[in-house]
Amino acid sequence: MTEAKSVVTACALIIGNEVLSGRTKDANLNWMATRLTDMGIRLMEARVVPDIEDVIVAALNEVRAKYDYVFTTGGIGPTHDDITSACIAKAFGVKVERNAEAVALLASYIPADRLNEARLKMADIPAGGELIHNPVSKAPGFRVGNVYVMAGIPSIMRAMFDGFAPLLTGGAKVLSKSVASFLPEGSVAEGLSEIQDRYPGADIGSYPFNRDGKFGCTLVTRTSDENDLAAAAGEIWELIISLGGEPIDEDLVSIEAGEKDGYATGDDK
Amino acid sequence: MTEAKSVVTACALIIGNEVLSGRTKDANLNWMATRLTDMGIRLMEARVVPDIEDVIVAALNEVRAKYDYVFTTGGIGPTHDDITSACIAKAFGVKVERNAEAVALLASYIPADRLNEARLKMADIPAGGELIHNPVSKAPGFRVGNVYVMAGIPSIMRAMFDGFAPLLTGGAKVLSKSVASFLPEGSVAEGLSEIQDRYPGADIGSYPFNRDGKFGCTLVTRTSDENDLAAAAGEIWELIISLGGEPIDEDLVSIEAGEKDGYATGDDK
Repeated sequence: MTEAKSVVTACALIIGNEVLSGRTKDANLNWMATRLTDMGIRLMEARVVPDIEDVIVAALNEVRAKYDYVFTTGGIGPTHDDITSACIAKAFGVKVERNAEAVALLASYIPADRLNEARLKMADIPAGGELIHNPVSKAPGFRVGNVYVMAGIPSIMRAMFDGFAPLLTGGAKVLSKSVASFLPEGSVAEGLSEIQDRYPGADIGSYPFNRDGKFGCTLVTRTSDENDLAAAAGEIWELIISLGGEPIDEDLVSIEAGEKDGYATGDDK
Repeated sequence: MTEAKSVVTACALIIGNEVLSGRTKDANLNWMATRLTDMGIRLMEARVVPDIEDVIVAALNEVRAKYDYVFTTGGIGPTHDDITSACIAKAFGVKVERNAEAVALLASYIPADRLNEARLKMADIPAGGELIHNPVSKAPGFRVGNVYVMAGIPSIMRAMFDGFAPLLTGGAKVLSKSVASFLPEGSVAEGLSEIQDRYPGADIGSYPFNRDGKFGCTLVTRTSDENDLAAAAGEIWELIISLGGEPIDEDLVSIEAGEKDGYATGDDK
């Protein structure tokens, strides 16, 4: 057996005109990103593409060669605009086949008089594909090679992901430590850059916020080395004190929903 | 003068490790998508990339050649992890220069004793770049060629976008008409596909939902041809009636927040 990879990478491919037109707000990327990070899989790219065959095929072939895993969402329903299955087949140079196991799953859920051709289309899977279980509404996703094809509906996507997640192989888990203060970014920037230089194996990021009208920033250290994590975060803690700020261990305090859900407003950037 | 283009395209390039690690939930894509659609600019792709110079430069050069406009968010602050300006310069093969106008803007907002080198970095702009006004906190974005570089913080991004939006040239506006019913997708799929075939210039999409436990789907027609829009939406309306459903004009009724914000759960997909 070869040694496990220490860095395992992934790409999310979000398929759907409705996300690009603004009709639908994607709710899958952040969930997937969080889950993958927890599993030691590094999401290196996310791409939203329209329901255009050539575009989906080209994007898929590019990213499946580049990353260890590709996770797609959207376009596997019964309507004419659901073309993901055909696109995956084309990208892999295989045919779409009506999968008997998938037909049986649909038949177990949909009454025979409603199991029409459109619904049966949800059993059309690229040849060689392995079904991904859908505990919510039976119509399966599938895996071909390193590409995992899931529904766009969040509850179904999550259930599908949770089903196959134990079979994914993560690498070294990236650990993180978040230290916040009410010092503005421009004040900590110089010292922070020096700390980053001392820990080239860590990624140190600065994320500004405005909480109840008070400006500040959260300084996040990310690395798979526990010792570096503790040392760099410790230096950040001391930096804040040396600049007259009060460090806050953000991994310990509970943050109001919304404050972490996107950037806050009005900082000094 | 050449004739105005009827199809004007765009790409959103979202720059930041924090979106890919799951720490931050992007709040810019959906806002931008909606705004561009309203302006007759078609968002054809969105890409989230990490804070890695080579990756940003390669992605930028690819998408700026492919689309009429590129809009980037993130990475223009004062800290070491803010590398967007340097990346844009590299992609265009120009140097980063300290922009006198940008320095003056920062000096008008930041007290002299706090205008340190880190904050002045926010005035470093690719040579030939034009400043994008930031009414929230002064530190400007910039435009180079067809690339518009904005902050990642939503309030600032929106203010920057609104400032330059009147200068963007849109193409034929894509109009849309949404007709919903409590028929499941699998029931409307066949008839809907026939309507799509009759209106090849229109994009007809089906988006399932679950409202108060009742399943259904919204059928959205999108086209820049008013007559096709009315005719196709009219046929969808009749299709729903013919299948025993009750069509709902979703452009007229107010939808609860959240129902349109992402997919609903539990449909027959």
